[in-house]
Amino acid sequence: MANTISIFDTTLRDGTQGEGISLSADDKIKIAQKLDLLGVHYIEGGNPGSNSKDIEFFQRVKHLKLGAKITAFGSTRRKNSLAEQDSSLLRIVESGVPAATLVGKSWDFHVHTALQTTLEENLAMIYDSFAFLKRNDVEAIFDAEHFFDGYKHNPEYALSVLRKAQDAGADWIVLCDTNGGTLPSEVHDIVTRIRMELNAPIGIHTHNDCELAVANTLAAVQAGARQVQGTINGYGERCGNANLCSIIPNLQIKMNYRCVSDDQLQSLTNTARYISEIANVHMPVAQPYVGNAAFAHKGGIHVSAIMKDSKTYEHIRPELVGNKQRVLVSELAGQSNIISKAQELGLDINANNDKTKEIMERIKDLEHQGYQFEGADASLELLLRDAFGEMKEIFKLESLKMIVEKTNGNHMNAEAIVKVNVEGQTVYMAAEGNGPVNALNNALRKSLEQFYPSINDFHLSDYKVRVIDEKDATAAKVRVLMESTDFKNTWNTVGVSNNVIEASWEALVDSIRYALLNMSRIDNAMDEPREQFGLVNH
Amino acid sequence: MANTISIFDTTLRDGTQGEGISLSADDKIKIAQKLDLLGVHYIEGGNPGSNSKDIEFFQRVKHLKLGAKITAFGSTRRKNSLAEQDSSLLRIVESGVPAATLVGKSWDFHVHTALQTTLEENLAMIYDSFAFLKRNDVEAIFDAEHFFDGYKHNPEYALSVLRKAQDAGADWIVLCDTNGGTLPSEVHDIVTRIRMELNAPIGIHTHNDCELAVANTLAAVQAGARQVQGTINGYGERCGNANLCSIIPNLQIKMNYRCVSDDQLQSLTNTARYISEIANVHMPVAQPYVGNAAFAHKGGIHVSAIMKDSKTYEHIRPELVGNKQRVLVSELAGQSNIISKAQELGLDINANNDKTKEIMERIKDLEHQGYQFEGADASLELLLRDAFGEMKEIFKLESLKMIVEKTNGNHMNAEAIVKVNVEGQTVYMAAEGNGPVNALNNALRKSLEQFYPSINDFHLSDYKVRVIDEKDATAAKVRVLMESTDFKNTWNTVGVSNNVIEASWEALVDSIRYALLNMSRIDNAMDEPREQFGLVNH
Repeated sequence: MANTISIFDTTLRDGTQGEGISLSADDKIKIAQKLDLLGVHYIEGGNPGSNSKDIEFFQRVKHLKLGAKITAFGSTRRKNSLAEQDSSLLRIVESGVPAATLVGKSWDFHVHTALQTTLEENLAMIYDSFAFLKRNDVEAIFDAEHFFDGYKHNPEYALSVLRKAQDAGADWIVLCDTNGGTLPSEVHDIVTRIRMELNAPIGIHTHNDCELAVANTLAAVQAGARQVQGTINGYGERCGNANLCSIIPNLQIKMNYRCVSDDQLQSLTNTARYISEIANVHMPVAQPYVGNAAFAHKGGIHVSAIMKDSKTYEHIRPELVGNKQRVLVSELAGQSNIISKAQELGLDINANNDKTKEIMERIKDLEHQGYQFEGADASLELLLRDAFGEMKEIFKLESLKMIVEKTNGNHMNAEAIVKVNVEGQTVYMAAEGNGPVNALNNALRKSLEQFYPSINDFHLSDYKVRVIDEKDATAAKVRVLMESTDFKNTWNTVGVSNNVIEASWEALVDSIRYALLNMSRIDNAMDEPREQFGLVNH
Repeated sequence: MANTISIFDTTLRDGTQGEGISLSADDKIKIAQKLDLLGVHYIEGGNPGSNSKDIEFFQRVKHLKLGAKITAFGSTRRKNSLAEQDSSLLRIVESGVPAATLVGKSWDFHVHTALQTTLEENLAMIYDSFAFLKRNDVEAIFDAEHFFDGYKHNPEYALSVLRKAQDAGADWIVLCDTNGGTLPSEVHDIVTRIRMELNAPIGIHTHNDCELAVANTLAAVQAGARQVQGTINGYGERCGNANLCSIIPNLQIKMNYRCVSDDQLQSLTNTARYISEIANVHMPVAQPYVGNAAFAHKGGIHVSAIMKDSKTYEHIRPELVGNKQRVLVSELAGQSNIISKAQELGLDINANNDKTKEIMERIKDLEHQGYQFEGADASLELLLRDAFGEMKEIFKLESLKMIVEKTNGNHMNAEAIVKVNVEGQTVYMAAEGNGPVNALNNALRKSLEQFYPSINDFHLSDYKVRVIDEKDATAAKVRVLMESTDFKNTWNTVGVSNNVIEASWEALVDSIRYALLNMSRIDNAMDEPREQFGLVNH
């Protein structure tokens, strides 16, 4: 279809060039699954063989049966050598990916300065590399690096580079604004001219150095580009890549192009936030479409107008991208999410009863304190079940003490001493640990294991700390998110405090309560499959 | 001059509509002075009389003798009343400002829904209000709210609104994309048409809801607009206003318009960072032009290319906007990154000597342990300077002890006891804190302040914790990244340990060493400007 735009996500490759972004193979698998649900067409996973993380990713991702095409990234062959003997190209083919992207030079200055070879040899490098991929039945995408700069300096050479890739069989010719310095009017003019010169479909790859990456992408699509390369939340080197979280809704809602299904578009906000959690990068509240403040109204006049008609100060309905309106003076957000969550747990809840109002008040208050339940379903489930009187107490804390000591040249020691009451019995227990949270975890588990032997069937699998209020970093509130797993299921809990140990303790207690209560429910239910009882994957 | 663009800053008015932004009168005065140095032409201070902060600001700012025109903000008169009796208009005139901006409706839907009056009365409100300002010798700027939405729905009415303001003597007609939903191609078309219909000069005011505010502003200027309204760092309601920190360099460096002097342009990065400190909003590292990562290179191929010629991966010279190139050291990068970093510090290093090999081995080993220097330049600088024997020891730790306690129902207490040796003297000090890291920070600073009083000139501004190896989260290694600031410069340090307290301690000690050693280097150098001695912006 003429108005279909192919979405090429490079969060896992170009995105990891962003400062502070480092993804494990596990992180990459999780992100790939999420991107697939969003409905992107290509997921660029990395450079196979460049490092052990990427090798592991390409091996594991094959078994996931994703709808998106997994693509590998590499360069055109080395100068003065054979494509058939290029270890990087061979590794791409061996990785078994259905599609690959090769970057090649299209700016003569770069051929001379960076590659230090001749213009002719660069053309041969491009031809040979694409011919090699096509002989091996790999869909081949050409990322023409610095194309716009190259075209402005030497249009004939830049164009001959594209023609070479096309002649060798490249399936897509992607024009890259690698340095991010091009203006939308230039992009529109140049793409329009290139379209007339080539038969292969054209793609666009922009960077945000002038805060124009999204506009440049739209300008290219208006001029005929049909593939868009970008990253979730605009992660990437320097100022980042083009942000797919803005491009997809702009194309689909504003410009009548088709990128993903309307249902998939509604998962955009959740996708963006999930990936920012995995990448451990704080999402700016003001981020367009998916940010927490994207549809938040503060001005009094604005608020009274949106109460008459939300179109007065909202350019789209936030639900189209899975976001929601917020009024900063009276927070009503999330009620429907909470209700649907409670109904999912089989709790008797509806919009009008007093219990619901009481729960909403409690959640509002906790969110105001800095809790965030979006990444902590298990804590939310405990809160809802507590409110309905469904939960029994696993144990009662009497006191807790932690001592951390270091002497010059030696590693720190951490000891925790807990005194808890379990089923009427007082247990007093001490344990060491590599760190304070580990010592706490050890001491609490030792106290409980005689009562709940199944406590050894699960462990903590991830631990994140974020400063909420940055006025004075070490005195500010912190939010701890913990992930736990029994190898089959994963659950997340949250804690908030000025004290990182206390916040960790809260999240730890929630994790253990959630696991033990769900396990006891499973034991009672005997044959029922475990997944029905809330130890859900997420 | 035909290519001069008038810069209208509304950080102090529209900027404060952003979530989490709240400025005192004092903050506003500081920001106005900084904006004046940058060379903006108009500074919109607020709504005189709307609250005591704004009243105080307008009284105090008069005495500063700024070059920029201070402008007041208000609306057209209330419906069915007289401009001469409108308290808001009277307050503007009484405030003695040389210029004022009045917002008025240009979308018929808003006239009916929000104002709840007739189209004719809205025209009269506009005419009367501008005639009143001009009778009182105030330069009058018309912000035509929702102009683009209005023009798309009812072009005749939207245009008649502009003509009314022009007929009443408005000096500028500013077209506002209030909801931020308009595309650059639409802005260009509409501004081109409006230009042919009006004599008054045209301005542009955009919002970033589609991540297009900068592009929309440039499109309007290309179509003939000669005033640009925006905010520093793009602060503003929902997704923010158009970001002047990107617009000014785009117009001046890329498009040959004149906004400020070249010297003033070089203060842009400092202005952006200063205002983000005052507003207490964390600046994204990837922010175009002025962000800490805007000219930061991570990929090894990129780094080896910029060492040949920085134009290979930089769209402008960072010095033009007062920013600087940074080379990030990461697993993706190689030896060339380290060498260029060392050269930047003036250390005698090259690819072949033994010292370099030794340093490379040390860094490789630390990275293997989980250190990451790409986000911790200050720790890397200390490591390099230590290797060259440049650093002296600030203090020696003898012992450190931390006690954290909690009893049922009460908040946790944290106490730290440190014993350090400074210049031969043993200092034994205890302090409390909201959390363990805060207690440590407090105890260490108390121990050192008698020797280094300047320790109070900087503080920690961000704190991040990440689990490196997720096999067992609470026993796994954690990496702590700390950011510190003296309001002018920012530096980052790293610590790694199984123990979150120990990792925090490492990052804290590096932060303090870095600051004190750079300060002492400055003291020794006397008159040399501070920037030359490593308290660099990064």
